Amino acid sequence: MQIAIVLYDRFTALDAVGPYEILSRLPDAETVFVAEAAGPVRNDTGSLAITADRTLADVPRPDIVLVPGGPGQSGQMENAALLGWLRAADESSVWTTSVCTGSLLLAAAGLLAGRRATSHWLALEELGRFGAEPTGERVVFDDKYVTAAGVSSGIDMGLALMGRIAGDEHAQAIQLMTEYDPQPPYDAGSPQKAPMHIVDALRARSRFILE
Amino acid sequence: MQIAIVLYDRFTALDAVGPYEILSRLPDAETVFVAEAAGPVRNDTGSLAITADRTLADVPRPDIVLVPGGPGQSGQMENAALLGWLRAADESSVWTTSVCTGSLLLAAAGLLAGRRATSHWLALEELGRFGAEPTGERVVFDDKYVTAAGVSSGIDMGLALMGRIAGDEHAQAIQLMTEYDPQPPYDAGSPQKAPMHIVDALRARSRFILE
Repeated sequence: MQIAIVLYDRFTALDAVGPYEILSRLPDAETVFVAEAAGPVRNDTGSLAITADRTLADVPRPDIVLVPGGPGQSGQMENAALLGWLRAADESSVWTTSVCTGSLLLAAAGLLAGRRATSHWLALEELGRFGAEPTGERVVFDDKYVTAAGVSSGIDMGLALMGRIAGDEHAQAIQLMTEYDPQPPYDAGSPQKAPMHIVDALRARSRFILE
Repeated sequence: MQIAIVLYDRFTALDAVGPYEILSRLPDAETVFVAEAAGPVRNDTGSLAITADRTLADVPRPDIVLVPGGPGQSGQMENAALLGWLRAADESSVWTTSVCTGSLLLAAAGLLAGRRATSHWLALEELGRFGAEPTGERVVFDDKYVTAAGVSSGIDMGLALMGRIAGDEHAQAIQLMTEYDPQPPYDAGSPQKAPMHIVDALRARSRFILE
């Protein structure tokens, strides 16, 4: 089982590392960070770099493709090399997945046409414009396509996917090992729950946040 | 406000990146990954590397010190350079923090003597042996010392700390931006909640998991 996590300039770190921490613990899995060029890839704020150990070309047929989101996604929507790789990898993948605005890249590659999918709550409308059927759910399975909502939702996706692949008991063991018993100090993690003026403030800044 | 996140060989990625994703969004904060030597630092499974942009010596007086845990922690418990840096940085820090077994390093540096603190559930007993007063809480504040439980708990710590520093509204906005509305597919994230045989199995493997 080979898992390829795609990096690109200005990705969001937790989008990638949340599900990485879960899925890399699949039995007998090899997880590899890939990008157009090997080497360190900087995140959205510029203060973190994860090494892409291999190029996209080095990893043509991963079993699981995982595409994180982040403001840099908008600069990749017409990147023929990346979109071409996504289409080719998807032909043989067992699971094709994304977190946050990573689903916009899957959609731009034509992989989510007519499929139920999700994205960051600020990007659901745009996801619809690319032919997917956006839902407000946190993790969406449609055949082999698994999409997660904003940033932190990739942890929930990782566990759900691990359950499908390795069984409930293994997923529960990983949940316990990573002590994933969330206790957020606020209840403001979705636009339905957060104070309205905070939702409105982020909506007004959405272009800045997403690009 | 300067935030220093300490890396060392075989750290656990989500321990560092969970709170990073929150705290790096503090207004006017500079976040920097530090290690004994600058350059890529590999995590516990070896498939992820984060770049330490600066050495410990480059960052002598951070406002926030954050120490992640991971199996590599056991190899650092007598590292005089790291423990010395922690003690010196703590003299001027506003907050000294850890996730998971990172608290064992703070304790080894003598910073948690007599203080309430937490760690990964498998490491609470060891934390007590180093002079701290272990609690089973997910996030523990004792004066300026903030410790979080296993791996994923650093996200909750990040939000709680952000609330103290920048106010509840800012923390709620970051929770909404990172869509942190956790919906784990299982309820097995603590030894009190997970099936007993899974707890026992991890306890039997605890040395392997922690070291």
